[in-house]
Amino acid sequence: MYSFKNDYSEGAHPQILEALIDTNMEQVEGYGEDCYTLKAVKLLKQRIKRNDIDIHLLSGGTQTNLTALSAFLRPHEAVIAANTGHILVHETGAIEATGHKIISAEVRDGKLDSALIKSALDAHTDEHMVKPKLVYISNPTEIGSIYKKRELEKLSQFCKANNLFLYVDGARLGSALCSEENDMELSDLGMLVDAFYIGGTKNGALMGEALVICADSLKEDFRFHMKQKGALLAKGRLLGIQFLELFRDNLYFDLAKHTNRMAGLLRKEISQAGYPFLIHSPSNQIFPILPNWLIAQLQVKYSFYVWEKVDTHTSAIRLVTSWATTEDAVWTFIEDLKNAMVSDH
Amino acid sequence: MYSFKNDYSEGAHPQILEALIDTNMEQVEGYGEDCYTLKAVKLLKQRIKRNDIDIHLLSGGTQTNLTALSAFLRPHEAVIAANTGHILVHETGAIEATGHKIISAEVRDGKLDSALIKSALDAHTDEHMVKPKLVYISNPTEIGSIYKKRELEKLSQFCKANNLFLYVDGARLGSALCSEENDMELSDLGMLVDAFYIGGTKNGALMGEALVICADSLKEDFRFHMKQKGALLAKGRLLGIQFLELFRDNLYFDLAKHTNRMAGLLRKEISQAGYPFLIHSPSNQIFPILPNWLIAQLQVKYSFYVWEKVDTHTSAIRLVTSWATTEDAVWTFIEDLKNAMVSDH
Amino acid sequence: MYSFKNDYSEGAHPQILEALIDTNMEQVEGYGEDCYTLKAVKLLKQRIKRNDIDIHLLSGGTQTNLTALSAFLRPHEAVIAANTGHILVHETGAIEATGHKIISAEVRDGKLDSALIKSALDAHTDEHMVKPKLVYISNPTEIGSIYKKRELEKLSQFCKANNLFLYVDGARLGSALCSEENDMELSDLGMLVDAFYIGGTKNGALMGEALVICADSLKEDFRFHMKQKGALLAKGRLLGIQFLELFRDNLYFDLAKHTNRMAGLLRKEISQAGYPFLIHSPSNQIFPILPNWLIAQLQVKYSFYVWEKVDTHTSAIRLVTSWATTEDAVWTFIEDLKNAMVSDH
Amino acid sequence: MYSFKNDYSEGAHPQILEALIDTNMEQVEGYGEDCYTLKAVKLLKQRIKRNDIDIHLLSGGTQTNLTALSAFLRPHEAVIAANTGHILVHETGAIEATGHKIISAEVRDGKLDSALIKSALDAHTDEHMVKPKLVYISNPTEIGSIYKKRELEKLSQFCKANNLFLYVDGARLGSALCSEENDMELSDLGMLVDAFYIGGTKNGALMGEALVICADSLKEDFRFHMKQKGALLAKGRLLGIQFLELFRDNLYFDLAKHTNRMAGLLRKEISQAGYPFLIHSPSNQIFPILPNWLIAQLQVKYSFYVWEKVDTHTSAIRLVTSWATTEDAVWTFIEDLKNAMVSDH
Repeated sequence: MYSFKNDYSEGAHPQILEALIDTNMEQVEGYGEDCYTLKAVKLLKQRIKRNDIDIHLLSGGTQTNLTALSAFLRPHEAVIAANTGHILVHETGAIEATGHKIISAEVRDGKLDSALIKSALDAHTDEHMVKPKLVYISNPTEIGSIYKKRELEKLSQFCKANNLFLYVDGARLGSALCSEENDMELSDLGMLVDAFYIGGTKNGALMGEALVICADSLKEDFRFHMKQKGALLAKGRLLGIQFLELFRDNLYFDLAKHTNRMAGLLRKEISQAGYPFLIHSPSNQIFPILPNWLIAQLQVKYSFYVWEKVDTHTSAIRLVTSWATTEDAVWTFIEDLKNAMVSDH
Repeated sequence: MYSFKNDYSEGAHPQILEALIDTNMEQVEGYGEDCYTLKAVKLLKQRIKRNDIDIHLLSGGTQTNLTALSAFLRPHEAVIAANTGHILVHETGAIEATGHKIISAEVRDGKLDSALIKSALDAHTDEHMVKPKLVYISNPTEIGSIYKKRELEKLSQFCKANNLFLYVDGARLGSALCSEENDMELSDLGMLVDAFYIGGTKNGALMGEALVICADSLKEDFRFHMKQKGALLAKGRLLGIQFLELFRDNLYFDLAKHTNRMAGLLRKEISQAGYPFLIHSPSNQIFPILPNWLIAQLQVKYSFYVWEKVDTHTSAIRLVTSWATTEDAVWTFIEDLKNAMVSDH
Repeated sequence: MYSFKNDYSEGAHPQILEALIDTNMEQVEGYGEDCYTLKAVKLLKQRIKRNDIDIHLLSGGTQTNLTALSAFLRPHEAVIAANTGHILVHETGAIEATGHKIISAEVRDGKLDSALIKSALDAHTDEHMVKPKLVYISNPTEIGSIYKKRELEKLSQFCKANNLFLYVDGARLGSALCSEENDMELSDLGMLVDAFYIGGTKNGALMGEALVICADSLKEDFRFHMKQKGALLAKGRLLGIQFLELFRDNLYFDLAKHTNRMAGLLRKEISQAGYPFLIHSPSNQIFPILPNWLIAQLQVKYSFYVWEKVDTHTSAIRLVTSWATTEDAVWTFIEDLKNAMVSDH
Repeated sequence: MYSFKNDYSEGAHPQILEALIDTNMEQVEGYGEDCYTLKAVKLLKQRIKRNDIDIHLLSGGTQTNLTALSAFLRPHEAVIAANTGHILVHETGAIEATGHKIISAEVRDGKLDSALIKSALDAHTDEHMVKPKLVYISNPTEIGSIYKKRELEKLSQFCKANNLFLYVDGARLGSALCSEENDMELSDLGMLVDAFYIGGTKNGALMGEALVICADSLKEDFRFHMKQKGALLAKGRLLGIQFLELFRDNLYFDLAKHTNRMAGLLRKEISQAGYPFLIHSPSNQIFPILPNWLIAQLQVKYSFYVWEKVDTHTSAIRLVTSWATTEDAVWTFIEDLKNAMVSDH
């Protein structure tokens, strides 16, 4: 059984494990004040091309989102997010648990735009309602679509003009930035948004997300919030070493490119086999619509999510590739799919 | 510079790293439902000698405490803790941040007893005050003392009789259970308390704590709380593999024994050199009281915390040993201390 | 300028003020333990025909909702409400501020039904999402519609079968129970729901809501929650005396009947004048759709909310009547409307 | 049975009830935007001699404290309070329920000073601990002592120098400001502290506290916080009319003076009868130490709190006077006390 269920089925890229081993017996400071974390942070600043930003390493996406958003907002302030947003759907109310409402905006392609945000602002007029204060987007979105630079610029301008913070959940940021359709760089994010995080867990790390705080007003005392939310690891080196390895050379982007290439192969071949897709997703999640009998047959050898029933006979499935997906596995899957098409019905 | 500052200065025991490498490319389930976590949980239940308990793996002590306590308590219920308790002092108000007051009981040796708890209960008489509901103790305590089985039994009985939950923070549980003065086993904890955690971070793991929930009424839906607090790792295998390795044979206890032996050496030699201790601490933290000039001299080669000024001329320092502390380092430290005594003053 | 903006523009029914004066210099217990509160609670139990319920008096609707819901739910549990629900729209995220997500169900007429709730349940499948646990409905709804007994029975059965609490926000409960279309009594609520509140503020009291807790499991320690949320008034008599007065004879229902009769008059006359309504609302809020020029003209003498633009030429307005609305005011308004129709256009 | 238990046993000063009746049938705006609230706020600004302050009317002390402090603090920030502070003892963890730790400072006379605050600051050194940010004092304190102007000035300077907010709980502020030993005016508070509240509930109102926010940085969006915490009354007039009545002429201070005069009489006579006091309390709470047999005898006709056992034979009781305490009642009590002394033992 081979899994295309997600991009965190395997452990870490071997180079990361080696770095852990190489540094293992050195005595370093705890709680993210070790030399590796400091180096990783310095390196990331160079990559983002800003020295006046703060960077903190945390363990996972939900933890990063809840720590950041609760630190950034006053009690009556709310978040605006697409209805597909991870914080709205798959984080067990983590943001609400810190006291903040999330205003859901109905979207088709996973992406927010100024019109949707304006709608939310217009609907919140006085002190009987929460005050929208932070816009949460994901890049790539939870359904694989990505933001173009122009779209992010517009969002950025709109948010600035309306006194809103703009925050990007980058759980799969590598895949977005390495997408064929992408026209942004890490440094663009650093200029356009108030805070974002660079996901490690879903791009080759054992775990780890690098939260980048660009807006000065959001920086103060952030380590207090991390500690309070249980996000300061005693052995912070574990995060520092990983991000150092990912960004020392180009590993982070190499892994994302591989990931995307694997998804691209699947996309192209499935498309050529005549199947449509639920959504245009130029990153590492694809959503082909297949006949149910074919899905059943593929499930014998492969695990993946059946995403959504499309009609009586067909459903969309989700295939996710990762840094660890082998080209062999992809070709075998394609072959199996083609064989099934020939043999059956 | 050699560090006796804490027990998390190094990485993980090499055997753990090897296990991570050996299993690295296997595809497993995410979020703690992988085979390694399941095996580790099964193994821990055997060690605790109860099958009717729930075990969850989390990343760190603060995270474990805040997730557990906020899951266990209703909004008006409070925690009773020794004034030295980690949750009262060193977790940035993490418990209060989930809405719960901690009632502080003044102690001398880091330990709570029934009389102190009764005092707290007696002072909370009606709905104008919080309702004490959970007793938090640490074993070993934050200042290295440990509970004897008889003491824990008394606490357990008192808590049951007074409708209180009893919770043990076991950040350094290995050191307590392997102390020469200890008369308890893991299975005793399983019988006597409502929940406790077995600390991995401070005993050879990269990170990780195993929360054991014994009381049926505290078990329901705990994974929801973990996810909500950002404590469900996508690659839960990282925790499962480590605890499997720690408890597959006897590694966890072997490491703790080594740790304690190193502390014992320091204790014995410093004592024989004529120095008293701030507190009787039969675990891996010791608090010798040294002349300030001697402390200054040791600080040239060693890092450690100066814990507390005792009088004009002397202070207590804290020395912590760990699974990674080498006997060489200990003997060198002792030699340096003795040399300093001879040469100086 | 006469106001049809809401049902809390005037003070209290004079009988209530008299009772406050009559009892003013008596010394009574504080914090809701006074003789008047005790009597009011006893009386309400008789009216609800259950002795095994708990009743608490609070100051306002938002306070009652947030105190009750946060007391009833564990941290990961969520509320299901109609998208028009007061807690979703007009309470500044008060429920989320206590940590709980509200799942919004899109409705047309302000009312929830089992199918909508089932949808919400089906969409929440595991620990990556909140756990729906309490269904919040309002009777009458925020847009004036009311639940029939059969509808409430079905909701009650569905909730019981699905282990959900059913909670009724009764801010305007008097108006619902005295509606011509109503077929329920106070005692039906006591049998069918887990908790509900009887609104006083919007039916003749200076302020005050009587929260009725029917489900045994929700009763424990409720006064702790009230105190913690700032809802225990030192001079609790202020609430007790008012509810005593409202329910000693039939004042509460008499006032609601008058309120509804005034709304009925407006409804009938506006309808006969040829105008449609945005929604069927057989309680004290009506939503006629009028030409914009007519609205403008009425605004010269009357204040009311323009609820919603319907098309280029017409809008729905909201007219609210209360215990204090005079028949004279209603007839004058109708006359003014008719005169405007004749004179203009 | 006559009660000296507290200062909220009776209703409101008759003048307040008359004002409620006189204005009862006027239609006014809801939620604190009515003309009476606006007038009351304007009047209070004149009394405090500052126009650049914000004033909000809330229902009770706990509500005011929790709404203000949670609005003023970020999640990791903590409050410093005397161990006798109302928020630490008698508000059911209301502040912690909003997520904030209260650091308790041990005091003798209910009062904080700079040294105690400095101690708390010194003990909170880094992000592993909460960050002290707001100093909470009560004037008079919970045990009847009052702050002199010089003391408040020193606190104010210390707080400013250390970037701390200074907040005064004025539940019984009238009694403090009208104490014979007082040397402050309302306008001094306006100059020296960042926020304070003027208690109405315990000085003749049915309920109501006027929160005064002096520091600009604390003002923004405060009404959002009020609504979110259930503190915006639909009929806000109820608060506005009361404060207007209390401050239109000199009623607030007249009532406090009467209250203090009654306490003074009791103090003087009990003292002359030879009994000492637990604490020097020049406001409306006094704590005479009486023989237990005498207490028992007084309890036949009077209700009051037995505050604290002093030795085997004597205890301190608490006597509280109010605006409603009659001189007759006081003299009868004194007579009864003297008669008991003669007759007994």
